Amino acid sequence: MGEFELLDRIRARLPQPGPGVVLGSGDDAAIAVPGGATATSVDALIDGVHFRRKWSSPAQLGAKALAVALSDLAAMGAAPGEAYVVLGIPADFDEDASLELLDGMARVATETGTTLAGGDVTRGPVLTLAVTVVGHAKDAGELVTRSGARAGDALVVTGELGGAAAGLLSLEAKEDRPGLIARQLEPKPRLAEGRTLAKTGATAMIDLSDGLGGDANHLARASGVGLRIDATALPLADGVTDLTLAVSGGEDYELLAALPLERLDAAAGAIEKQSGIRLTRIGAVVAGEGVEIRLPGGELLEARGFDQLG
Amino acid sequence: MGEFELLDRIRARLPQPGPGVVLGSGDDAAIAVPGGATATSVDALIDGVHFRRKWSSPAQLGAKALAVALSDLAAMGAAPGEAYVVLGIPADFDEDASLELLDGMARVATETGTTLAGGDVTRGPVLTLAVTVVGHAKDAGELVTRSGARAGDALVVTGELGGAAAGLLSLEAKEDRPGLIARQLEPKPRLAEGRTLAKTGATAMIDLSDGLGGDANHLARASGVGLRIDATALPLADGVTDLTLAVSGGEDYELLAALPLERLDAAAGAIEKQSGIRLTRIGAVVAGEGVEIRLPGGELLEARGFDQLG
Repeated sequence: MGEFELLDRIRARLPQPGPGVVLGSGDDAAIAVPGGATATSVDALIDGVHFRRKWSSPAQLGAKALAVALSDLAAMGAAPGEAYVVLGIPADFDEDASLELLDGMARVATETGTTLAGGDVTRGPVLTLAVTVVGHAKDAGELVTRSGARAGDALVVTGELGGAAAGLLSLEAKEDRPGLIARQLEPKPRLAEGRTLAKTGATAMIDLSDGLGGDANHLARASGVGLRIDATALPLADGVTDLTLAVSGGEDYELLAALPLERLDAAAGAIEKQSGIRLTRIGAVVAGEGVEIRLPGGELLEARGFDQLG
Repeated sequence: MGEFELLDRIRARLPQPGPGVVLGSGDDAAIAVPGGATATSVDALIDGVHFRRKWSSPAQLGAKALAVALSDLAAMGAAPGEAYVVLGIPADFDEDASLELLDGMARVATETGTTLAGGDVTRGPVLTLAVTVVGHAKDAGELVTRSGARAGDALVVTGELGGAAAGLLSLEAKEDRPGLIARQLEPKPRLAEGRTLAKTGATAMIDLSDGLGGDANHLARASGVGLRIDATALPLADGVTDLTLAVSGGEDYELLAALPLERLDAAAGAIEKQSGIRLTRIGAVVAGEGVEIRLPGGELLEARGFDQLG
């Protein structure tokens, strides 16, 4: 099957474009009329670097590639809009697998209201996915960057931590822990939660892709503040007992946000009501710099994240 | 050097964001306020599939990856806006090479008025570049798709054909033909020409990435028309004598457009004045379907393009 035939088959399976998309996949470019501010981010998943094919179904890989990209939009408080997909296909990844991968991605697109608006399908030495996502807001002021945290804000996190890293360990050890493995293979972008945090006054936000310690450092540095985290407050995923997985493990794709103290209850209540997801206060924004994580015994943990090229 | 350090060094070299970009690289997502219609396209270049590292400098690869993506915006008549870059770096591609690659890309960005607004840098088994570009227009009606050609329109092409394919042959044969090799390694997106064609009434447009035959077929199929091309009229690049390179060779990144006959002189004159690029009438749009290329002897050439996965 040639490139154009595969593209035709892929396009035939795509859901209809959403509002704001004038022209979807199939021309030189997709046409949209954003009508406000856009937030745009790109993420790549490469076999052997970000995933192992033996651990995931093609549908899981397609779903994760889009979910991970959308997580960046969640961290801006943007509403998901369009996705543009590069798919590099090796010789041993057949047509059915390619279509299954796209079906997995299309499922997440439908669930989140994202239009798969364009892409590029090519040969490649290993399975490669790169997804650019465009999110929307009425104006730029609605979007939350990493850089607005102020001393005195509460530091909060959505959901639970450490599950994705524990799932990765379970896969490596060939343990049957489906709940944790799902946290690794099937992350859920916190889109509704991100928008609610933005609307209830979050001053800074980041998604936890590299691990709490590293991402907290990004937020602290961008905002020019320090962060104090109480490890005993961290919401651990079911089955996670090792605190370091919650602190240094990556890929939880929960949201870390700074929020004025007086907005905490409103935000937590709205998110709980909206999706049943818990918002947990894990620390505070302070004047200064750096991230200190205080362990149960009182000692301070060095906050480090996962450095991809390191 | 870790991912974040490399990212910091890359960001320090990026030109300032252009108008419309509220927040560039460094946060979860870039923020823009498009204020009209957008055209968005993505293109990937993978070592061993789309290029060979021994033939190109890192700067040439970076420049080509952006140029090729921008060519799709040229074919819509869009003004270039933002680019989002995935860079997959193998172990034998060092820090200096990565920065040189980004410098080459930044040069094209500056020349074309494109903001490098975001990206993802990761390890990868082979050098991989994926570039998403966003172009702008006042409204969607200003943008030219592949699907508006009407019987009676003239069929025109910018610049010269066959040079990129001849350059590839020269590289393979280790011939010293710098002009043709530059056509292969340093394509120029016809951005100003595309906008002028859109403004002077082009009814359909496509960039020549797969080769004239194949891309003409895409345009004919999208428009529901037939195309008649006179091979004796094809503007061959200097040093190209084999017509099949102009018909079936890919990567010229010239524009193929349909245009009402009465707009032909205005369009050709404006483009010649603007950039010195020639607009050549190479055939006609007819009722029916398919692409027929009439050779000098009178026989018909089968119109086929380059099918990446075929």
